[in-house]
Amino acid sequence: MSVGFRTFNPTLNTWNDEVYVRTSENEVNQKLKLLPSAQDSYRRLSVLNRADYLHAIHRSLQKRMGIIKDFYLKESGLSESRFETEWKRTLDTIILFEQYLRSHPSFEKKGYLPTDSIQMRKAALPIGPILVLGSSNFPLAYSTVGGDTVAAFAAGCCVIVKAHPMHAGTSSVVAACIEEARKTLNLPEGLFTHILDDGIGLAQQLCLDERIQGIGFTGSFKGGKALMDLAQTRKNPIPVFAEMGSVNPVIILQDLSTDQQQHAAKKLAFSIGNDAGQFCTKPGLIFIPKGEMGSSFLTLLIQAFSEISPVPMLHPRIHENFDKRRIDVISLKGVQHHTHQGALNGIEGRCTLAETEMSIFLQSQSMHEEVFGPFSLIVRYENSEELRTGIQTLSGQLTGSLFYGNHSGLVDEWIHLLTDKVGRIVLNDVPTGVRVMETMHHGGPFPASSDARFTAVGTDSMLRFQKYVTIQQQNIT
Amino acid sequence: MSVGFRTFNPTLNTWNDEVYVRTSENEVNQKLKLLPSAQDSYRRLSVLNRADYLHAIHRSLQKRMGIIKDFYLKESGLSESRFETEWKRTLDTIILFEQYLRSHPSFEKKGYLPTDSIQMRKAALPIGPILVLGSSNFPLAYSTVGGDTVAAFAAGCCVIVKAHPMHAGTSSVVAACIEEARKTLNLPEGLFTHILDDGIGLAQQLCLDERIQGIGFTGSFKGGKALMDLAQTRKNPIPVFAEMGSVNPVIILQDLSTDQQQHAAKKLAFSIGNDAGQFCTKPGLIFIPKGEMGSSFLTLLIQAFSEISPVPMLHPRIHENFDKRRIDVISLKGVQHHTHQGALNGIEGRCTLAETEMSIFLQSQSMHEEVFGPFSLIVRYENSEELRTGIQTLSGQLTGSLFYGNHSGLVDEWIHLLTDKVGRIVLNDVPTGVRVMETMHHGGPFPASSDARFTAVGTDSMLRFQKYVTIQQQNIT
Repeated sequence: MSVGFRTFNPTLNTWNDEVYVRTSENEVNQKLKLLPSAQDSYRRLSVLNRADYLHAIHRSLQKRMGIIKDFYLKESGLSESRFETEWKRTLDTIILFEQYLRSHPSFEKKGYLPTDSIQMRKAALPIGPILVLGSSNFPLAYSTVGGDTVAAFAAGCCVIVKAHPMHAGTSSVVAACIEEARKTLNLPEGLFTHILDDGIGLAQQLCLDERIQGIGFTGSFKGGKALMDLAQTRKNPIPVFAEMGSVNPVIILQDLSTDQQQHAAKKLAFSIGNDAGQFCTKPGLIFIPKGEMGSSFLTLLIQAFSEISPVPMLHPRIHENFDKRRIDVISLKGVQHHTHQGALNGIEGRCTLAETEMSIFLQSQSMHEEVFGPFSLIVRYENSEELRTGIQTLSGQLTGSLFYGNHSGLVDEWIHLLTDKVGRIVLNDVPTGVRVMETMHHGGPFPASSDARFTAVGTDSMLRFQKYVTIQQQNIT
Repeated sequence: MSVGFRTFNPTLNTWNDEVYVRTSENEVNQKLKLLPSAQDSYRRLSVLNRADYLHAIHRSLQKRMGIIKDFYLKESGLSESRFETEWKRTLDTIILFEQYLRSHPSFEKKGYLPTDSIQMRKAALPIGPILVLGSSNFPLAYSTVGGDTVAAFAAGCCVIVKAHPMHAGTSSVVAACIEEARKTLNLPEGLFTHILDDGIGLAQQLCLDERIQGIGFTGSFKGGKALMDLAQTRKNPIPVFAEMGSVNPVIILQDLSTDQQQHAAKKLAFSIGNDAGQFCTKPGLIFIPKGEMGSSFLTLLIQAFSEISPVPMLHPRIHENFDKRRIDVISLKGVQHHTHQGALNGIEGRCTLAETEMSIFLQSQSMHEEVFGPFSLIVRYENSEELRTGIQTLSGQLTGSLFYGNHSGLVDEWIHLLTDKVGRIVLNDVPTGVRVMETMHHGGPFPASSDARFTAVGTDSMLRFQKYVTIQQQNIT
């Protein structure tokens, strides 16, 4: 095995020139030695000091937007406008946490017990160093300085990032920004650690290291579940916050007006195909009624979807997996499909809508599973009873969307049903475009995420990385 | 195997007359069939309805105090005054949650995003049916209607209690009270399920049942860890909130005045020996300085402890385990001991203080582990450095206590050190006597509990049993 690896340019369909050197096991061990003392120092700082650190990271990133953009584009194949969106979102997340910290300078609540003059101060403290595994599909917003890292810093935790190998260059520049901010504020060495590896060896080593106290992961079910299981074998098991696959069901009710149908069809087509559908919240399953209204809606959806142009996927391996899964599903008995037919130049994702009916869907495990890419499965349902059964057979999901008109008396009932299955319910809109805010919940029942009680987006995501200690003393009055 | 089992009267050292019939696997399956619809109905009720339910349980319990007390005394061997305390605590917990629900009628927070008129309502919902495994040492407060059950009901969850077999009678009467309250309010059958078993078979079956969504457990490390591991093998893993063993270190600093020494010695002696030391927060490890002050404190402690009378333990098996562990430790090389020498009539716990020095303690795994009963290990330390090392070798603990005088400049430093190891820090007081209040944290880093982020006592304990769902819609202005 050579010591280096390269990233891939999906747009040019070639490997990039830069060679990235894998961090050696020995180097990792050297870096980990700094952790206990760095964690101890960082924990002693005030909440406002953490806000300052986030502010400095923000500034440092801004200075290097140009070079980050260059790497981002050539390592992801994503568009310039997508870069702008993700860049803004990444910076906004940092600001959101910075502001949250400034407005909550003490993570402590106090209680008194008058009967015996006892004071109890309950403080939220960092759980300790967090390992963040960069995602493939958000080279910025869910990677080196993404939501997990920023939430962990805000909670008072050291962070070890293992960069996603597909965007090692982007990650290295971002890591340099974080390190610059740390040095500017004279914060301890070891507060942030950046690691490069194109295999799973170092991630496993880190998952088992007793100094690591929690893990943030965004990726496949297989990868997430393996980490969860590995973390349970430790002497002291730790939480793994894994956000895994989701088909994000969409329900189309019978009573959409023609205008509403057109609106929904356009929104959905874009949500499925945009950026090659490489979003954890991409609508991958659409329940459409049988009968005239459903057929007219389907025609509109197919029409709108045909206007989406295929774009390169993130990496040849992702493209290969996509095509395999896509073909698996459209080859099943009882499945029709509407597939983009134009010629492809490289690793573009071939936009595909598959179509089946509920009775077939209910029998198929393969149709219940995510196809990561510009693909969605339409399932026609006969009546409310069949729709209800369809929803009940789903496993845990990140989101569930509901499109309804003015005559849907039972909307509350569908919402009620969805709360058992999903972490976010979207009414008359598409699930993509996750807003970073305090009331966002980005998570869902297993297997969508490892723990339905926690969100990966928004300020509450900090709660994953905090533990509590109560200090009890005689009330000094 | 016979179908029935009996409970034991520790005071009389005989088995009680009543025979309790094990719930059969078939009966359990019948009861579980009611769960999905009961959970669905209960979830639809308002938060105030849940408060009404708790209120009705409270009333129903009060009506049956006499019979509950009779069973409690004859199944636990605990004293009347202990019954009074635990009874009050149990009722107070119900009231605390009832009041909390009435003052928080909506578990929802709202956020708006002006840029695209999006409203996000984030609601806390019940995670689903909770299995509660009654503890051996709190027949009321951590059992059938204990903290876990009440928190789960408050969170909107159905509850399945597997009674601790040692107090099957107490549990059955309490279960009847809960059922009476349910019927009075016409709440769904299956909201509460009571199960009797003197083996581990049914607990394992329930842990693996996909309808169960979370587990509350108070008991041994072995039992808790086995449940955690088993729950991870499910298709959909669930959280196990296990509160396991703890030695609850106490640190005596050098500068206690003579008055303070007397006060601390009395408090500690009582805390170790009261109710045969059968508390999860019993101080089982006391760090005392070498030299004159430490020796004089130790003399006071031994004196105060000699005045504690041995009382029956909860059960012959607990007594047997206690004596085995107690003798294990006092037989180790380098350990002296001060053991109550009077004659015993039955299963009284023989009050014992063991004593060693830090260098020996650091080498011994056995000394680091809990001895459940009226026992504490005194470890003499040379200086601050040795004390620091001693604390650092500890595993996760529920509590850590610190006794200090007016000249201890470094109190904050000891507190800082303890926050890594414990869930509650007690200043100049003993850890027993857990207060039920909003700012209590009863938990601690693994292995004291399964998850340092959650408390088993106080209103925050509800957070264990809630998940979140965000509902996203266009803001209707």
